[in-house]
Amino acid sequence: MGRWAPGARQRLVFAAVDLFTEQGYDATTVAQIAERAGVTKSTFFRHFPDKRELLVAGQEDMCRLLSDGIESAPAGAGAMTAVAAALENASTMMGPDNRDLAPRIKAAVSTSAELQERDALKSVSLAAAMTTALVARGVPEMTAHLAAELGVLAFKQGFARWSDGDRRDGRDLAELSLEALDELRVASRSLD
Amino acid sequence: MGRWAPGARQRLVFAAVDLFTEQGYDATTVAQIAERAGVTKSTFFRHFPDKRELLVAGQEDMCRLLSDGIESAPAGAGAMTAVAAALENASTMMGPDNRDLAPRIKAAVSTSAELQERDALKSVSLAAAMTTALVARGVPEMTAHLAAELGVLAFKQGFARWSDGDRRDGRDLAELSLEALDELRVASRSLD
Repeated sequence: MGRWAPGARQRLVFAAVDLFTEQGYDATTVAQIAERAGVTKSTFFRHFPDKRELLVAGQEDMCRLLSDGIESAPAGAGAMTAVAAALENASTMMGPDNRDLAPRIKAAVSTSAELQERDALKSVSLAAAMTTALVARGVPEMTAHLAAELGVLAFKQGFARWSDGDRRDGRDLAELSLEALDELRVASRSLD
Repeated sequence: MGRWAPGARQRLVFAAVDLFTEQGYDATTVAQIAERAGVTKSTFFRHFPDKRELLVAGQEDMCRLLSDGIESAPAGAGAMTAVAAALENASTMMGPDNRDLAPRIKAAVSTSAELQERDALKSVSLAAAMTTALVARGVPEMTAHLAAELGVLAFKQGFARWSDGDRRDGRDLAELSLEALDELRVASRSLD
């Protein structure tokens, strides 16, 4: 199989998640992941800097999609409308694979302090990207922080409902994230 | 100097922050920190598992103070009143040393991806502790998540104003955190 065979990246992710599930995150090496995926170690390193980054891959793409969504919201739109546009945009990068792998990735993260740290940084990065994009639209800083945190919470809640939920529920990730964002908006009005 | 000399923990933190400032976080070893603080490496390891934990020390204590504050809020108090009590309680563990070291710790964190990850996990842990304590009071889950995130944002903002601010401003960390919490509450009512 050629080193640049299409799908190598996806096969690496599947192989890694299988191995993390079977033998734990700490015990799994890059060499084992590459072997299971049928590629060389060099191919692994062309796709990911290390095994930890493999599980949070896509953070930069997601930050960009969130920022773009906020930037392209209509000129008069408020902060929450812009955040809704961000979540719709970011949802486009999640497909059936992400949905199916989610429970096993969650299990792997729950067993590794190192992965929990990396995962926490991902949340913080997504919030920071949205805050920056909102401030650039003229949203006051505290409102921007707040709206961005609501966006991250809603996206996590939406993703959990989407990946844990019944596959017969025909709603997609964007709908479930916007539903969660609406719930948070309602909750934010009645805080006491 | 005895290995259990009082103040060893504090001296280790000061020595570490000095070394991180002078030569960077990555280049600094536990042995160097211990030597600068005038203690043995064993003493270092009695206080901290590694140099990374030294900079986020107190996370567990802070989680406990936040939870206790929420738990001990009056029976009829709403989520935000309980969060305010949490911030007041957590503020008690921050003294003049924390205030003075803050800019240099911030500088060290900004240069190290590893420290940023650990710092992000600390924020996530504080939010989780407050969410759990709020749910235990009967606050609905989405409201609890929201109020806890506002609490973390307010505490970070309050801490930044306190450590960056003019020392002639006589307000303490608790006051500045509650001020930020009020701003976030106002912002949350006008989200659109």
